[in-house]
Amino acid sequence: MKLIRYQFEEKIEFGSLEDQTVRRLKGDIESGFSETGETVPLCRVRLLSPVMPKKAVCIGLNYKDHIAESGAKTPDSPVVFLKPSTAVIAPQQEIEYPAISSHVDYEGELAVVIGKRAKRVEKADAPKYILGYTCANDVSARDYQPADGQWTIAKGFDTFLPLGPCIQTQADPTELEIRTYLNGRLVQHSNTSQLLFQPYELVSYLSQIMTLEPGDVILTGTPSGVGAIHPGDVVDVEIGRIGRLTNTVKAAQTQCD
Amino acid sequence: MKLIRYQFEEKIEFGSLEDQTVRRLKGDIESGFSETGETVPLCRVRLLSPVMPKKAVCIGLNYKDHIAESGAKTPDSPVVFLKPSTAVIAPQQEIEYPAISSHVDYEGELAVVIGKRAKRVEKADAPKYILGYTCANDVSARDYQPADGQWTIAKGFDTFLPLGPCIQTQADPTELEIRTYLNGRLVQHSNTSQLLFQPYELVSYLSQIMTLEPGDVILTGTPSGVGAIHPGDVVDVEIGRIGRLTNTVKAAQTQCD
Repeated sequence: MKLIRYQFEEKIEFGSLEDQTVRRLKGDIESGFSETGETVPLCRVRLLSPVMPKKAVCIGLNYKDHIAESGAKTPDSPVVFLKPSTAVIAPQQEIEYPAISSHVDYEGELAVVIGKRAKRVEKADAPKYILGYTCANDVSARDYQPADGQWTIAKGFDTFLPLGPCIQTQADPTELEIRTYLNGRLVQHSNTSQLLFQPYELVSYLSQIMTLEPGDVILTGTPSGVGAIHPGDVVDVEIGRIGRLTNTVKAAQTQCD
Repeated sequence: MKLIRYQFEEKIEFGSLEDQTVRRLKGDIESGFSETGETVPLCRVRLLSPVMPKKAVCIGLNYKDHIAESGAKTPDSPVVFLKPSTAVIAPQQEIEYPAISSHVDYEGELAVVIGKRAKRVEKADAPKYILGYTCANDVSARDYQPADGQWTIAKGFDTFLPLGPCIQTQADPTELEIRTYLNGRLVQHSNTSQLLFQPYELVSYLSQIMTLEPGDVILTGTPSGVGAIHPGDVVDVEIGRIGRLTNTVKAAQTQCD
C-alpha cells in the first residue's frame, strides 16, 4: 500500500493511493487504519509529509560506494544524529535557503517509518516495528557542518527535511534503487544493497538506546554524488516502489515572520 | 510563579505551587493558563516533567569556569546538539544506567522553557518567548561520546533527560546559583553569570536556525565538576528560585520490555 497523508476540505487525513485515486482511511499510525469506502481524486487533495515524526534519527556515512568514493574510514557502528521535527516539509513545499549559509547540499535518502513502539528489539523482529518506507532529503548547510563537531545546526534549519510522497508499506529495503535529480539531471544513483548498516539492523541498534515511537523516521544515509543547491533549483529524490519526492529551493526570508 | 505539571486522580494538569499547596490551573503552555480556584496538597499529586518538549536543544561547553578548568578553546558560536524527547523523565523518576555503557556522568544544567513560537527573534525580544526556567540533568554515557564525532548516542538514551521540579516564570537567568549534589555531596557549584552564551542570546541564535515551539527546552550547558554516577546513586540539581530536581540511578533492564 502507498499510504499518504493529505489535506482535503480543511481536514487532515490518511489515504491509500492507487494510481490517481485516493481511498480515504480512518485512523492513524498509532491506532491503525480502516477503510471508509470513500475515494477522492489525487488532484483534489494537498499532500502533506506522510508523517510528523517526534524523532528524525539520521545515519551518516552509510553507503559503501560513498565510503569508497570519499576515502573515509568505514565506521564500526552507525554514526547517528538528529534533525528537529521543525525541519519537516511536504512534497512540493519549498526548501528555504538560509540567508546565513552559502553552501547548502541535497542528500537523497531512504527513510524508515516506525509503526509500533520499539524498545530493545532484536534485528529478526525489526520488520514488525516498521510501517514502511519513504523518500527523504537530508538537506545540509555544509558551511555549518564541522568535520570534528556537532552537525545539529547544519542539518537542523527549518525546511531541511522534505519527506514523502508516500509510505510504501510493502518493500524489501535491502534492494531499492535510489536516485536524486537536480533540475532533472541524475546526480545520485545507488541501491540500498550498498547500505553498510541495513534498516532492520538500524531499528534494532537504535532501539537499544532510545525508544522508537510510531511515526518516528530513520534516515538511512546518502549515497555518493552529493552536491550543492541554489534558490530556483528543483530536487527530486526517487526510490523504486515509493515514488518521487520533489521540492524547489527558494531564498529564505531574512526578517522576522 | 512555580508552574508544575502533575497527575492527580488519573488527570494530567498544570498547577501553581505555593509552599506545599497546588493551585490547580486550566489550560496549557500553548493556549495559556487560568485559575480554577481549586487547590490540592502537593503530597497528593505525582509530579511529572514540567514539559514534554518536542525539541530539547542542548549547548555544550558554555560555562567560563568549565572552559578555563578544562583548557578547551572558547567556542566562537554555541556548540549545539539535540536530545530526543524519549529521554525525558520526571522528578523522582529513575535514571536507567544502560547495560552497554560503563561510564555515565551527571551534568547539572539550567533549562530555558519556550512559551511562544519563536522564529528569527532578536535578543532584545527573547524574554517574550520564554515561559520560564527549570533544572535539567544532561545525563551522558561518556564512553559513547567521541571527542570528534556525534554526541547523539551518548546523550540520547531513554531516561537521560530529567527535568523539573517546576518552571519558575520569574527569574533573572543571568544570576542563578546552580548546584549539583551526588549522594548529598556538593559536586558542581557555579552561577549562570558564568555562561558564555546567555539564555536570551541562545533563544535568538537558535531561532535563526530552527523554529522554537511552546514547551521546547534549551539546556544551557554544565559548569565544572562533572563526574560519574552508578546504580544506587542519588543526583540532585538545585537552582536558586527554581528548586531541586532529584533522581536516583538504577541498572537498566537488559531484556525486551
